[in-house]
Amino acid sequence: MPASVRVLGVDPGLTRCGVGVVDVERRSPTLVHVEVVRSDPAEPIEQRLLRIGRGVEAAIDAHRPDAIALERVFAQANLRSVMGVAQISGIVLRAAAERQIPIAMLTPTEVKAAVTGYGAADKQQVAEMVRRLLRLDTAPKPADAADALAIAIAEGWRTRVPRAGSAAVGVTTRAQQAWAAAEAAARGRR
Amino acid sequence: MPASVRVLGVDPGLTRCGVGVVDVERRSPTLVHVEVVRSDPAEPIEQRLLRIGRGVEAAIDAHRPDAIALERVFAQANLRSVMGVAQISGIVLRAAAERQIPIAMLTPTEVKAAVTGYGAADKQQVAEMVRRLLRLDTAPKPADAADALAIAIAEGWRTRVPRAGSAAVGVTTRAQQAWAAAEAAARGRR
Repeated sequence: MPASVRVLGVDPGLTRCGVGVVDVERRSPTLVHVEVVRSDPAEPIEQRLLRIGRGVEAAIDAHRPDAIALERVFAQANLRSVMGVAQISGIVLRAAAERQIPIAMLTPTEVKAAVTGYGAADKQQVAEMVRRLLRLDTAPKPADAADALAIAIAEGWRTRVPRAGSAAVGVTTRAQQAWAAAEAAARGRR
Repeated sequence: MPASVRVLGVDPGLTRCGVGVVDVERRSPTLVHVEVVRSDPAEPIEQRLLRIGRGVEAAIDAHRPDAIALERVFAQANLRSVMGVAQISGIVLRAAAERQIPIAMLTPTEVKAAVTGYGAADKQQVAEMVRRLLRLDTAPKPADAADALAIAIAEGWRTRVPRAGSAAVGVTTRAQQAWAAAEAAARGRR
């Protein structure tokens, strides 16, 4: 395994699309880049998709990640918003395939569970854990930015943490200890 | 208005994506091209989207339509299939915007009503009307091909037929008469 892996996470959205890039070395993630690509709700849908697609692709090409991770869409109350998210997801999935970069889809529950230890964590808890894990002074804003980083961190861990049954399970690194402490602190404030 | 308009219709699907191109002069459409772009359900989703996206874009670039029309996605029983269709729609919408070609989304009911005169027409009725309208010996197959042509024809008519209130309403061309006769014949067989 290489020393570290660079992951680009995408929180797909038509009005605000979060893009976050982290380098993950063992369990320790480092912030590389974060931005929110926006489109104007007054514009036609095809112009909005073009704008978001170009923004995400520019971030991919600028930071050349080893892997891309995307939040998986689920049925929501608002069909229209689900459609927009699915349309963006299609564009990002295709962009990854075009560049031969592996892409994974993670559910919101998987991301929250990975980052906060709690699958039903709220946006503020996710943002605070992202702040601690990346050793930042303030949590990334808006929530879409923090979510994109959480997705990138979760995917970095998912692909780099030894699987159950491998020899390394049970070994706790300093980074893992720090993470466990931060997680416990976050839980204490709930 | 130019003498005729070239419309490319897309019936979005992940396994079979219909693409049909017609030239529409007044109400008379002529077949230019029809194909079904396919992807293998065993492949990862991102590869399938890349394959379908490239296929549709190749048809756009080969036939240089004045307008593109896409069947609008609705909630269906199968969420997974809706997601695939929405993802392809996003890619096609973005491809149109990138090429500065106007793109419209039509509902299945609008397409069926335009082509057969009956919004709840079945696939066979649509295919038969497409065959008659394009003066073909046999109906285009599979259904995705016929549907893509129906979408293109409907959009060609929608943009070229005078709106209610304009001076031309009520004028019946020979092509319109032929269409009305074909429509009546199709209804008679139901």
